[in-house]
Amino acid sequence: MSLIVQKFGGTSVGSIERIQAVADKVAKFRADGHDIVVVLSAMSGETNRLLALAAEISEQPTPREMDVLVSTGEQVTIALLSMALHEKGLDAKSYTGSQVRILTDSSHTKARIKSIDEQRMRDDLSLGRVVVVAGFQGTDEDGNITTLGRGGSDTSAVALAAALKADECQIYTDVDGVYTTDPRVVDGARRLDKITFEEMLEMASLGSKILQIRSVEFAGKYKVPLRVLSSFEDGPGTLITIEDEVAMEAPAISGIAFTRDEAKLTIVGVPDTPGVASKILGPVSAANVEVDVIVQNTTEDGTTDFTFTVNRSELNKAGAILRQVAGDLGAREVITDDNICKVSIVGVGMRSHAGVASKMFAALADVGVNIQLITTSEIKISVVIDEKFMELAVRSLHSAFELEQA
Amino acid sequence: MSLIVQKFGGTSVGSIERIQAVADKVAKFRADGHDIVVVLSAMSGETNRLLALAAEISEQPTPREMDVLVSTGEQVTIALLSMALHEKGLDAKSYTGSQVRILTDSSHTKARIKSIDEQRMRDDLSLGRVVVVAGFQGTDEDGNITTLGRGGSDTSAVALAAALKADECQIYTDVDGVYTTDPRVVDGARRLDKITFEEMLEMASLGSKILQIRSVEFAGKYKVPLRVLSSFEDGPGTLITIEDEVAMEAPAISGIAFTRDEAKLTIVGVPDTPGVASKILGPVSAANVEVDVIVQNTTEDGTTDFTFTVNRSELNKAGAILRQVAGDLGAREVITDDNICKVSIVGVGMRSHAGVASKMFAALADVGVNIQLITTSEIKISVVIDEKFMELAVRSLHSAFELEQA
Repeated sequence: MSLIVQKFGGTSVGSIERIQAVADKVAKFRADGHDIVVVLSAMSGETNRLLALAAEISEQPTPREMDVLVSTGEQVTIALLSMALHEKGLDAKSYTGSQVRILTDSSHTKARIKSIDEQRMRDDLSLGRVVVVAGFQGTDEDGNITTLGRGGSDTSAVALAAALKADECQIYTDVDGVYTTDPRVVDGARRLDKITFEEMLEMASLGSKILQIRSVEFAGKYKVPLRVLSSFEDGPGTLITIEDEVAMEAPAISGIAFTRDEAKLTIVGVPDTPGVASKILGPVSAANVEVDVIVQNTTEDGTTDFTFTVNRSELNKAGAILRQVAGDLGAREVITDDNICKVSIVGVGMRSHAGVASKMFAALADVGVNIQLITTSEIKISVVIDEKFMELAVRSLHSAFELEQA
Repeated sequence: MSLIVQKFGGTSVGSIERIQAVADKVAKFRADGHDIVVVLSAMSGETNRLLALAAEISEQPTPREMDVLVSTGEQVTIALLSMALHEKGLDAKSYTGSQVRILTDSSHTKARIKSIDEQRMRDDLSLGRVVVVAGFQGTDEDGNITTLGRGGSDTSAVALAAALKADECQIYTDVDGVYTTDPRVVDGARRLDKITFEEMLEMASLGSKILQIRSVEFAGKYKVPLRVLSSFEDGPGTLITIEDEVAMEAPAISGIAFTRDEAKLTIVGVPDTPGVASKILGPVSAANVEVDVIVQNTTEDGTTDFTFTVNRSELNKAGAILRQVAGDLGAREVITDDNICKVSIVGVGMRSHAGVASKMFAALADVGVNIQLITTSEIKISVVIDEKFMELAVRSLHSAFELEQA
């Protein structure tokens, strides 16, 4: 008998039928003797409906009142699921974020969890009750309603699992696990049985958007075993776990991530003096433009070429800033390119497998893909290439690293 | 400068435009220097939408979870109004029933208020803030969300006014005050400037359904001056107040109430023994049929005729019970009639004005209306008559008591 925290997202509770299907799933786990804490999002569409009401009133609605408004979404689903569980003869009790006492800081619309009082939940569980908690929301010290920001229900689930020392935190989504890469791009993409937290973080941030990054970080920090699985079909999903538990004989890489929506900016011929990088990026980040890849090369004439990528929608903004900076610094020119993409291989195995990088570059060269930029971290190698080669590159790498095979 | 509690019902906050209109109204009172606490219902239609969701899941949804569900309705409106007030440059802060701490008993879906912690509201008011409170809801000792039942927002408003010792509790509705009778029946029906709590109670229970009875009782008990006025047009409305404040020279009666949806049952020739009334009514009330007028006459042959009225929709149910009882008691027969109506004159003035009853009966006789039943209380005289005479009776009485004139 285990204690399991199960989180269902908006699509999984998007209609009465779906809510009843969630109740069936919970009932099955209860029948197997498990203690269950369920964490729910708002019904899909509901949060947007509420945001639209606020938008009719104000362009910049007060954050405190936004939280009062949107937190009603999950309150509706916890009540409905509890009723559905009762209807199946299960005892169940719902809690808002304030009631369970998920204590957060006071940063409305993007609050961080400080602590959770798990006593009431424990009492309910010991009485055989299913505990149903509103995700995404909490309360600050003064009793104000707070929310954790979009996708915050994943974070709520992991935090509850950590507080309760749950055996597993199951995140139900519309995919049946984490794949070696996007199955829409590579036919042979394979569901991973296990992946480490670090790999998951690199995969998620690179575009395989299954889980909110914050929740994965959180799960890794508190060593909460996290499982991603499908709301709509049965299956084991993918377990996200700490490195030790992944077989020592792990393959070199676990998956291939990619993102299309980036653009590249290069400032050419900048006099290479100390502090030049911060002089270039300072104004960019001051304008709230997020920078992804950063690469700097020194040339022989005492100048440097400095390249970085941003979200494609911010290219114009970043370009204007950079041209201003180029003038100030006496650089030769600014070149921008929005026909790029980024492809990354991710895996803790690359730490112990030599030659992963050269194998990657060879595989790309074999199919004639030119590499524009390279960056590396301990468990990830990313390349920026021409966008039109993206699918070709992903398929070649998937095959070169034999990811079709378990 | 006064402290005013203002309550707006579902129609008054039924759309974004309406909510903005409420914000305008509140802003005007603030500009006049008043401290304002606003109490809101859910947007019209929202509570029914939520009830329909619950009905899809269960025929008898758990009361505790019903309260979690439907209390979201007011939570949405308090957030939206607070945003609208901010948009007009006013400081405002919303509170759910739990947050303001409206403490109730644990009778979910029909809870009663036990106490209110007014300190947070006082602090906000002293900072110049408008306090916006969710009506209809509270919390029990254990932090469970409770609701006060349909119309409970009126009760919330009065309870807040009592706790804050407000100068006035204003209930905004879709009518501009309390009338001498229904203007749809009598052209000359006149808005009353003042009415006593007792009169209002008799008027409300007899069909002039403007305010929830419980809130009037509550206001009377705590001597909270209550004003009914229109959300949609300006005007003084009707002040409901204690008797002493109504002029000594009050007219004999204040208004005429009526109800159509009753039916009459008579059990004829019951042996007149002690306890016969409870033997007749016991089974009726055990079946949850509410009885309105009760009249008993003794005849000379040692038997009695016992008559009472019920809601017309319950006539069949009550009739079946009564025929059973008639058999048990050896009564002669049971007669039922659903072509009746009840007309009542109400006024504290009748205490000091002799001959009010005879004037009423004479007015009815003048127009040929036969009286079937008469009951009286201290400030009310009701007659049951044939339904087809209802309008005629109301108009005749309105004229006989000169209610057109202030």
